[in-house]
Amino acid sequence: MGDNGRTTVGIVGASGYGGVQLVRMLCEHPNVDLVYLGGDSSAGKSYGDIYPHLAHRVNLTVEPVNIDTIASRCEVVFLGLPNGLACKIAPQLLERGCLVLDLSADYRLTDMEVYKTWYGSEDRADYEVLSKAVYGLPEIYRDRIPHTNLIACPGCYTTSSLLAIAPLLKQGLIEPDTLIVDAKSGTSGGGRQGKINLLLAEADSSLAAYGVTRHRHTPELEQVCSDLAGHEVKLQFTPHLIPMVRGILATVYATLRDPGLVREDIRTIYSVFYQNSPWVRVLPNGTYPQTKWACDTNLCYLGLEVDARTNRVIVMSAIDNLIKGQAGQAIQCLNLIKGWQETLGLPKLTFYP
Amino acid sequence: MGDNGRTTVGIVGASGYGGVQLVRMLCEHPNVDLVYLGGDSSAGKSYGDIYPHLAHRVNLTVEPVNIDTIASRCEVVFLGLPNGLACKIAPQLLERGCLVLDLSADYRLTDMEVYKTWYGSEDRADYEVLSKAVYGLPEIYRDRIPHTNLIACPGCYTTSSLLAIAPLLKQGLIEPDTLIVDAKSGTSGGGRQGKINLLLAEADSSLAAYGVTRHRHTPELEQVCSDLAGHEVKLQFTPHLIPMVRGILATVYATLRDPGLVREDIRTIYSVFYQNSPWVRVLPNGTYPQTKWACDTNLCYLGLEVDARTNRVIVMSAIDNLIKGQAGQAIQCLNLIKGWQETLGLPKLTFYP
Amino acid sequence: MGDNGRTTVGIVGASGYGGVQLVRMLCEHPNVDLVYLGGDSSAGKSYGDIYPHLAHRVNLTVEPVNIDTIASRCEVVFLGLPNGLACKIAPQLLERGCLVLDLSADYRLTDMEVYKTWYGSEDRADYEVLSKAVYGLPEIYRDRIPHTNLIACPGCYTTSSLLAIAPLLKQGLIEPDTLIVDAKSGTSGGGRQGKINLLLAEADSSLAAYGVTRHRHTPELEQVCSDLAGHEVKLQFTPHLIPMVRGILATVYATLRDPGLVREDIRTIYSVFYQNSPWVRVLPNGTYPQTKWACDTNLCYLGLEVDARTNRVIVMSAIDNLIKGQAGQAIQCLNLIKGWQETLGLPKLTFYP
Amino acid sequence: MGDNGRTTVGIVGASGYGGVQLVRMLCEHPNVDLVYLGGDSSAGKSYGDIYPHLAHRVNLTVEPVNIDTIASRCEVVFLGLPNGLACKIAPQLLERGCLVLDLSADYRLTDMEVYKTWYGSEDRADYEVLSKAVYGLPEIYRDRIPHTNLIACPGCYTTSSLLAIAPLLKQGLIEPDTLIVDAKSGTSGGGRQGKINLLLAEADSSLAAYGVTRHRHTPELEQVCSDLAGHEVKLQFTPHLIPMVRGILATVYATLRDPGLVREDIRTIYSVFYQNSPWVRVLPNGTYPQTKWACDTNLCYLGLEVDARTNRVIVMSAIDNLIKGQAGQAIQCLNLIKGWQETLGLPKLTFYP
Repeated sequence: MGDNGRTTVGIVGASGYGGVQLVRMLCEHPNVDLVYLGGDSSAGKSYGDIYPHLAHRVNLTVEPVNIDTIASRCEVVFLGLPNGLACKIAPQLLERGCLVLDLSADYRLTDMEVYKTWYGSEDRADYEVLSKAVYGLPEIYRDRIPHTNLIACPGCYTTSSLLAIAPLLKQGLIEPDTLIVDAKSGTSGGGRQGKINLLLAEADSSLAAYGVTRHRHTPELEQVCSDLAGHEVKLQFTPHLIPMVRGILATVYATLRDPGLVREDIRTIYSVFYQNSPWVRVLPNGTYPQTKWACDTNLCYLGLEVDARTNRVIVMSAIDNLIKGQAGQAIQCLNLIKGWQETLGLPKLTFYP
Repeated sequence: MGDNGRTTVGIVGASGYGGVQLVRMLCEHPNVDLVYLGGDSSAGKSYGDIYPHLAHRVNLTVEPVNIDTIASRCEVVFLGLPNGLACKIAPQLLERGCLVLDLSADYRLTDMEVYKTWYGSEDRADYEVLSKAVYGLPEIYRDRIPHTNLIACPGCYTTSSLLAIAPLLKQGLIEPDTLIVDAKSGTSGGGRQGKINLLLAEADSSLAAYGVTRHRHTPELEQVCSDLAGHEVKLQFTPHLIPMVRGILATVYATLRDPGLVREDIRTIYSVFYQNSPWVRVLPNGTYPQTKWACDTNLCYLGLEVDARTNRVIVMSAIDNLIKGQAGQAIQCLNLIKGWQETLGLPKLTFYP
Repeated sequence: MGDNGRTTVGIVGASGYGGVQLVRMLCEHPNVDLVYLGGDSSAGKSYGDIYPHLAHRVNLTVEPVNIDTIASRCEVVFLGLPNGLACKIAPQLLERGCLVLDLSADYRLTDMEVYKTWYGSEDRADYEVLSKAVYGLPEIYRDRIPHTNLIACPGCYTTSSLLAIAPLLKQGLIEPDTLIVDAKSGTSGGGRQGKINLLLAEADSSLAAYGVTRHRHTPELEQVCSDLAGHEVKLQFTPHLIPMVRGILATVYATLRDPGLVREDIRTIYSVFYQNSPWVRVLPNGTYPQTKWACDTNLCYLGLEVDARTNRVIVMSAIDNLIKGQAGQAIQCLNLIKGWQETLGLPKLTFYP
Repeated sequence: MGDNGRTTVGIVGASGYGGVQLVRMLCEHPNVDLVYLGGDSSAGKSYGDIYPHLAHRVNLTVEPVNIDTIASRCEVVFLGLPNGLACKIAPQLLERGCLVLDLSADYRLTDMEVYKTWYGSEDRADYEVLSKAVYGLPEIYRDRIPHTNLIACPGCYTTSSLLAIAPLLKQGLIEPDTLIVDAKSGTSGGGRQGKINLLLAEADSSLAAYGVTRHRHTPELEQVCSDLAGHEVKLQFTPHLIPMVRGILATVYATLRDPGLVREDIRTIYSVFYQNSPWVRVLPNGTYPQTKWACDTNLCYLGLEVDARTNRVIVMSAIDNLIKGQAGQAIQCLNLIKGWQETLGLPKLTFYP
């Protein structure tokens, strides 16, 4: 804790899109002091040179990543690194007493074999650390989150999809093997890297699916779905790249077990399920979520429909992929761990249009 | 036929987006002369004033809609009118000997009761005319198209979806009631009308579903699917509005009857099914269609995937909603009826990016 | 003042884009209570039905516009009406003791003849009221703003352009008649109305100028420029419509009087000129403003360049057209009038990307 | 010449955006056979793997760049290489008798010193080759183009700007040192390379100037302007990056020498100047060019305005940056050199919207 009674926090991997969301929100968070920004590729640069629009607000320089430096200054460390790097430094930070919130996939899958299959990774030595990680989706694991010092923050697709699916599986309303998630994401989900397919010239005015049948968020989805259902669930997940910067819409399809259920029944079940979740909004009947409504906020908007002709429930879920789908949710977890209000320091109203 | 041996054609409803595609393509078509543009709202205007970029090429003035004038000048008439208007004038044009290609929904559904249910329409008197209409999807009804003088041109969503589905149903490869079509369209599908939700300020940088469980292309899809399957098919169809001008991607999901089928099997079946269809391209394994590839062409690109984990086939279908999904397909039908090459006068190579 | 010691405010014309910015910001403003939303076209509607993403935060219904009702409830009234309507109700609100902040053009031009020429308006009877209005650009008229009860909030183009020009004219650095403003705006500046040219299908992936030589922000620009220069100034103003939702970039060109001035000199002059202006950021040498940096904030970013080859200064100015260019600036004026901090309740950090 | 009497052509640097435009157009050109695609980075790849939407039309593999191979197969060679590379191979190709059309900047500036200053280049040995190059802007140098075997194809900004300026300078209508070009370009002008600032996530929904006072198209503009005026001209050129894929709009400002000139006079002068130029369209009074109108065509649309208040002429010029601004213009030059119709094989009608 800092001299002023506020919690000291640092970010490793501060120059990416996850990093800059964290910087922006942590600057405004009333209970924390952002004291460290780390990153090897941009070490030595003033943060205001990387993101000039923040120069008037953030007066920090990116430092090389040094575990002892970080641990000596930061009570809490956010890791915004590519997959496969967080697991190299998280164990050392935990040893030195830091609370670690990892935005990568390294600690999301509880079964290391599944991780290795989907991520093509070599064997890792941190099985013990992995076993202590808690999946940082507060709407489902709110009770477990305060009892760990390692949070595995969920993927963006996974967050939007699971918030749409959870009440259905938890209440046993659907045939689990009929679950299909057709998800659509803005291109910022691809990160701040110079890939040809993410150029405006290539991605604008166009639309395509990718990673069909094999996107890495699939096992993460199935792990939590199986946990909710109480038995193994396999589902279909198809992501699409949309010509816009931010936002995810997940359209979820499943067959209802009870053909007598109507939209209003489903809506009641969702409202009860999320009654203590300040970041989830169940929309009125007939209103479908626009991703823009969630943009630049930590909110998830859910729209519901039941098709009596086909006996299917259709749930639409909209989030900001970089906030509720990444950095905002990590801060939501921090709030829970520290016993602060779950909404503290997080953006809740967007501009429109 | 004109004095020069070329076919005389006219367009009623020439100022909308369907109309301007027709104008552009018919101007370049080697076998036709565009001699008439009609439309009540823009009657009296030079076409070059409505679309200044065409002023150097199109030297016609929009005329009030008069059946006798049209029939006296045009062998072929394209109707680009809102739903419910084509059925008022098509019978009179047919009586006077015109070949009519209707871009609206008025003659798509063979069962007038279904039409009335989904379109909320009053009773219509043109049952007999309806019974002669042929659904203008050449890849499925190529044999019937030359034997009619009234073509009901398919909807844009329907075209992209049916081309993805047809081989599956025709060959009995799937459980029909597992069919889900998750479709994504650019906003030009909404037409040239000043709707708030189609404003750039509202629709850009955002994404949403609409018409869930009740979009009017559903019965049209089911009619053709039932025809292909040989029994009644009910499917799930969900359209989404995408922040781009042109293009549709339909992502189709279905459960395979035979769990032993692999992607290569499906690809072979599709290649055979479309071997005589010059406007359908089945992509190599692992390549998924970008809507941009089809943009400004009459092509449909199909990508295929089989998920051995879930036993589903996933088909992605990309078209230009205004060309293969509307005006181009109408001209393709005209080519077939007149015995011309199916590709005549239609755009086949797009620019990129 | 409300019972809680907070200022009661209302908005007439709450359903447009200016209105919804005001609603969003006034909800979060610590010193005010938003108690009234008025508008004839949407009277009777819950505000959450018009803008569903705000339903969880704003619990007000739009009411018909009634002067006595407004005056009885609101200390401060924002008018977000089309040009020509504010002048019908502002006088009555002022009579009843309200503080009025008008977002339209009705009180911007001090010379009623100029107003009538550029706005094609009939004669108006409110000359006396007009004479008391103060032009609400705090960076230039900060001293006058607290001494009025009628603020004429500047146009969006005018705000971005004047903040770029003011130091040049005030310090006599340029030949005034060489001033050219080439401005580029997102389409939300056109308002929430169903115009064909503002459709995504028309405005996306394209770019054009409009109102060349005759845009109505020209006389407003010239009025303030003349005031700054101490003599009449005529300038060239050309607006362009850009395929994006929010933001204006004004690129300003002028010939320097003293060919010896270098970029660093200009930068020093701007820094001094704006040293007490918390909403203006003069960027470092070589950094040019992105409109995105200002998006969803009340900030103006200025970039400076001097061309020794041509002896010109080039100033680039980026704002959010709906916030610093409209609703945010109105609240900034309210803060000044009430003696609150100039930055109170206004958004200052944007998300990126 | 090929056995069939058609001209054999090749492209070096075929995988970039300039290359793919050439491939698409040369495939459709009635008088040429595209027989060679070269490029070191993509050597060995099938062209259909790089651009899958062309796989059904282009059956060529990219080959390593070998001068003798190229010269043995190609009568005409287009060079689509980065600046500084064309000058390494053009001399050898010319020696072997090829006609060379270079899309880079290497042969645009007639004064090698100016080239070295603006391009930061070392000394080059090909002075003699440079002296034979002709600047490939047919509307200005139509007479010289057929008499060379080395065409220096103009830059995209330069093309749009010069077509707007040429009649003014040629007829002595303006004060040359008042010339300001404020240009706006889609991001495809930045090429097919993974730059962070060209990502959709960075460039979409935003707008900024770049290269202010020092963009490399400036000396190219000044060289041709000086040639037109008959004396040295210095002008102001400011490019902006616009959130769209294709298109350039150049807005040109200049002070008229004769204050009595009106818009109609200017329009007449332009119409006469371009009467033999099939690719330039002078728009009617009051109509301003949309970049979308020129998209995917070789056309340039010009809009004209005169401001009697300021005594300035304002010319707006819209082109497709990759066609009239690059690859299309190169083919236009080829047509002229070969004595074919200037419009042969070039796209002239765009789709809308």
